[in-house]
Amino acid sequence: MSTAFDVWAPKANNMRLLANGFEQQMVRGEQGWWHAPEPVPGEAEYGYLIDDAAHAVPDPRSRRQPAGVHGLSRTFNPDAFSWTDQDWASPGLTGGAIYELHIGTFTPEGTLDAAAQRLDYLAELGVQYVELMPVNAFNGHHNWGYDGVLWYAVQETYGGPEAYQRFVDQAHAHGLGVIQDVVYNHLGPSGNYLNLFGPYLNEAAATGWGDAVNLDGPQSDHVRQYILDNLEMWFRDYHVDGLRLDAVHALRDERALHILEEMAALTDDLSAELGGSLFLIAESDINNPRVITPRSLNGYGLAAQWSDDFHHAAHTNLTGETDGYYADFDSLAALAKVLQHGFFHDGSYSSFRGRSHGRPLDKSVHNARQLVVATQNHDQIGNRAAGDRLTAGLGYEQLALAAVLNLASSCTPMIFMGEEFGASTPWQFFTSHPEEDLGKATAEGRMLEFARMGWDPALVPDPQDPQTFENSKLDWSEIAVGRHPFLLQLYRQLLHLRRTMPELSEPDFRKIEVDFDEVSRWLSIRRGKVLVALNFADSPRELPLPLEGPVTVVLETAPSLTADGAIELPGYGAAIVSGV
Amino acid sequence: MSTAFDVWAPKANNMRLLANGFEQQMVRGEQGWWHAPEPVPGEAEYGYLIDDAAHAVPDPRSRRQPAGVHGLSRTFNPDAFSWTDQDWASPGLTGGAIYELHIGTFTPEGTLDAAAQRLDYLAELGVQYVELMPVNAFNGHHNWGYDGVLWYAVQETYGGPEAYQRFVDQAHAHGLGVIQDVVYNHLGPSGNYLNLFGPYLNEAAATGWGDAVNLDGPQSDHVRQYILDNLEMWFRDYHVDGLRLDAVHALRDERALHILEEMAALTDDLSAELGGSLFLIAESDINNPRVITPRSLNGYGLAAQWSDDFHHAAHTNLTGETDGYYADFDSLAALAKVLQHGFFHDGSYSSFRGRSHGRPLDKSVHNARQLVVATQNHDQIGNRAAGDRLTAGLGYEQLALAAVLNLASSCTPMIFMGEEFGASTPWQFFTSHPEEDLGKATAEGRMLEFARMGWDPALVPDPQDPQTFENSKLDWSEIAVGRHPFLLQLYRQLLHLRRTMPELSEPDFRKIEVDFDEVSRWLSIRRGKVLVALNFADSPRELPLPLEGPVTVVLETAPSLTADGAIELPGYGAAIVSGV
Repeated sequence: MSTAFDVWAPKANNMRLLANGFEQQMVRGEQGWWHAPEPVPGEAEYGYLIDDAAHAVPDPRSRRQPAGVHGLSRTFNPDAFSWTDQDWASPGLTGGAIYELHIGTFTPEGTLDAAAQRLDYLAELGVQYVELMPVNAFNGHHNWGYDGVLWYAVQETYGGPEAYQRFVDQAHAHGLGVIQDVVYNHLGPSGNYLNLFGPYLNEAAATGWGDAVNLDGPQSDHVRQYILDNLEMWFRDYHVDGLRLDAVHALRDERALHILEEMAALTDDLSAELGGSLFLIAESDINNPRVITPRSLNGYGLAAQWSDDFHHAAHTNLTGETDGYYADFDSLAALAKVLQHGFFHDGSYSSFRGRSHGRPLDKSVHNARQLVVATQNHDQIGNRAAGDRLTAGLGYEQLALAAVLNLASSCTPMIFMGEEFGASTPWQFFTSHPEEDLGKATAEGRMLEFARMGWDPALVPDPQDPQTFENSKLDWSEIAVGRHPFLLQLYRQLLHLRRTMPELSEPDFRKIEVDFDEVSRWLSIRRGKVLVALNFADSPRELPLPLEGPVTVVLETAPSLTADGAIELPGYGAAIVSGV
Repeated sequence: MSTAFDVWAPKANNMRLLANGFEQQMVRGEQGWWHAPEPVPGEAEYGYLIDDAAHAVPDPRSRRQPAGVHGLSRTFNPDAFSWTDQDWASPGLTGGAIYELHIGTFTPEGTLDAAAQRLDYLAELGVQYVELMPVNAFNGHHNWGYDGVLWYAVQETYGGPEAYQRFVDQAHAHGLGVIQDVVYNHLGPSGNYLNLFGPYLNEAAATGWGDAVNLDGPQSDHVRQYILDNLEMWFRDYHVDGLRLDAVHALRDERALHILEEMAALTDDLSAELGGSLFLIAESDINNPRVITPRSLNGYGLAAQWSDDFHHAAHTNLTGETDGYYADFDSLAALAKVLQHGFFHDGSYSSFRGRSHGRPLDKSVHNARQLVVATQNHDQIGNRAAGDRLTAGLGYEQLALAAVLNLASSCTPMIFMGEEFGASTPWQFFTSHPEEDLGKATAEGRMLEFARMGWDPALVPDPQDPQTFENSKLDWSEIAVGRHPFLLQLYRQLLHLRRTMPELSEPDFRKIEVDFDEVSRWLSIRRGKVLVALNFADSPRELPLPLEGPVTVVLETAPSLTADGAIELPGYGAAIVSGV
């Protein structure tokens, strides 16, 4: 086996390939592509020498970075792996739940292979998909993943690309799909050599997280292809079922054909070619239905998007916190609105933004499954000053209430690793930038950000402190003690019910009825013959039970009492009741 | 009559009204609105004193600025005018032609009343709409209009708001509709006091022409309302039939509900209320069908947009110029594509932009009338170094060829004032900034811009020189001499034919057949039984005549010869031929 090396570097006046210690002059071809005349036999450690540079920089399409993002690239043959998932076909988003996890903190080892050892556990838990936070190569040993700079490489400390293939193959063997979180809206602060090669970046669109990509300026056709080819890589070489696209609202693209639409079309083409129902999920905070409107109706045609509104309404009603962006969600009416209509901000005034925001979904076009919801996720935990989970402030009953609200939702529910057993470990913001200055700037920026929001900076752990990373790892020993196993059992029950009782995941918004009492603080969700009854008050409440015939309590988080046309729930109690 | 004064000024800590020499303390109300407790009787000369300012600044919603954009505002009662156009109802864009004119240079006097004296002429010419370049208040005595800063005021040197009402009333009496060119994407460089009142501007979105407006940041609901109310003003108070929206691609709006869609929806509401078919035309350079896709199909729902592609294809084939953005249009194939498909750049590579551009129109959704086309317009003339028209380089035969191409188009044709008689006067870029520094910066900026594009700066007239403005005025004495009357007669004939021969303005792209020979340089457009034959070569050409039965030459710009199944056109000749 040998490798022919090509690289797009329109900015370079000269290009040399350094491979396995030998330099080779490259030849400029069409449209800024450079070719190395001599293929390199076997596996190669390589990089590019741009113009008269003395040090080689990594390949923008590098598959491996054994020595980190500043080191040489390593070839990887994605076709060498012996897949065993021939019988697997991605089911698409059919109502099952997603389990979001971070490879570095999910297990003590922090590797893909160690995570794969927990696939039995996840399959038993009953989720449909495992969603991995970004695994592309980032600066340092550990990171959330959103500082990635080499989108084609799988982080070496996680095990690299072959470990990724093993993980997906084993997930499929367990009946679990895999969703990969990918970041195309910005690049991390260290290890980004892209702009030495070509006009990859759009400085005018820089985000708070880093440089943004050039989607509509000169030579952007190649930059878009870089993204589209990367998307294809995940589906074709790694057999993932879906991609979660980070912060699509930060993709600045003024073209008539938006990159999101192009990505969705390519995903559909790949579904047709590779089989199964591959899909894209956007993280979007603009509440724009266009993102998930079919392309036949001039939408972008993504399968789904995250719904922060659901989270905010749930969080506010569960915790009573009403700071910042929670302010508008301080009512059961807000929660009822997201349950029935999807978006809370559908043109309504957002006090956080100081303007009206969003527009309504069209119930004849959009369905609830197109919204991925959560009561906790990496951002909503990790972006708190102390990275504290709901467990820090809520009792078991309230955690159970949150679980029922989320997992009995018509939306596509997601849970964050450890949530299912009420992990007490925080999930904090951590980095491991080897550059002292960058590390310091990152830590100080974090403190300043929270100080500006009125938090006590003393609460904010130092992201560069290795202990912050260690503290964020799940403590699996908790799972068997105290209330933890009870909560885990509840999650398993709920996920089982979700698979066996179609009403719980009824996708049609028009079939969802919500009733609530703002003063008494109860809320119920009825879909057909099934009622989900939720008591947000700390003392018992009686709720109407508008079901036909004798009713069955299918699940209760604490003893409830049904009477004729009513159910009494204890404080923070929740129940799922079925009629005939 | 008295006036109650209110102004939105959320940034102000204190506001005083200065009206007719008297100061009045204002009271802060809801959402940043300030109210003057005492109404002011009669007409008022007024301004606002922000915080402890010693000098009053104009009202953002001022209707008159008798002393210029830095002076006091004057009240104007739009309801005092006695309209006589009760029987008029805007026809919408039904295939008629548009006549674009600039009030300052259309007549020697440069006023609305003087322009109104020419309505007889325009009605006889046979256009359907008169389109006025921007008339909102700008800095100085004369200006193209795109340096406007007070969007609610009609420029005083043009005659002010009442003269505007007279103009529209008389246009309607002549059977002519009025389209007003309005600029919402930026503000001029002098006289913009908006940001003293509130967060009107979005600095991140500043355009090359000036500050941009805040459409999606905090408090942008009010800024959007400022625009929407202005749009309503033109329809309600001034009875215009349509608005031409300047450079909509520069409206930076990340909201789920784009301001263009909101404007189009309001226009439709006003049509329903006021009667007739009011409409919006966008100047858009992004070739995005969404702009003119109906809202029921998730488009913005504007009636039409300008098509630069048509201009560029026509210009290149008429003149042989292939510099800059003309490069991709250097073929009859390019012209044939715009005639049959609307957009040339429909996803194809744009060498000028260095990337692919645009996307195709949907022929089952969009029609040719939704594209406003021209062989000359204010930009394509005025943004040339010397502001020279096609008359500077083309002979009579070629001007006639251009006229047939444009006015026999299925698109909505527009002509630029004076084009119809082959005006020899240039139309140059002119300003009259009273501030010396600004004047100098404007002039120098202009020279630099052209020098950068490789033009000889000596060719570029000084925009601040009053003679540049004078030179740009039409010379109406030309109309009766030399070849001018012949050209005028041709335009009249073509516009008459356009009204009486529906094939010439057939809007359905699917019914347009185009044939051409790239080498021989002829092109023909067939719609039903009518063929438009065009010879871009300088010597005679024979074209196939695929019409049924005996044919009639309906119009010829020079003697042509029909034979069995063919027509011979002289060099640069054009003809319209009808079968049975």
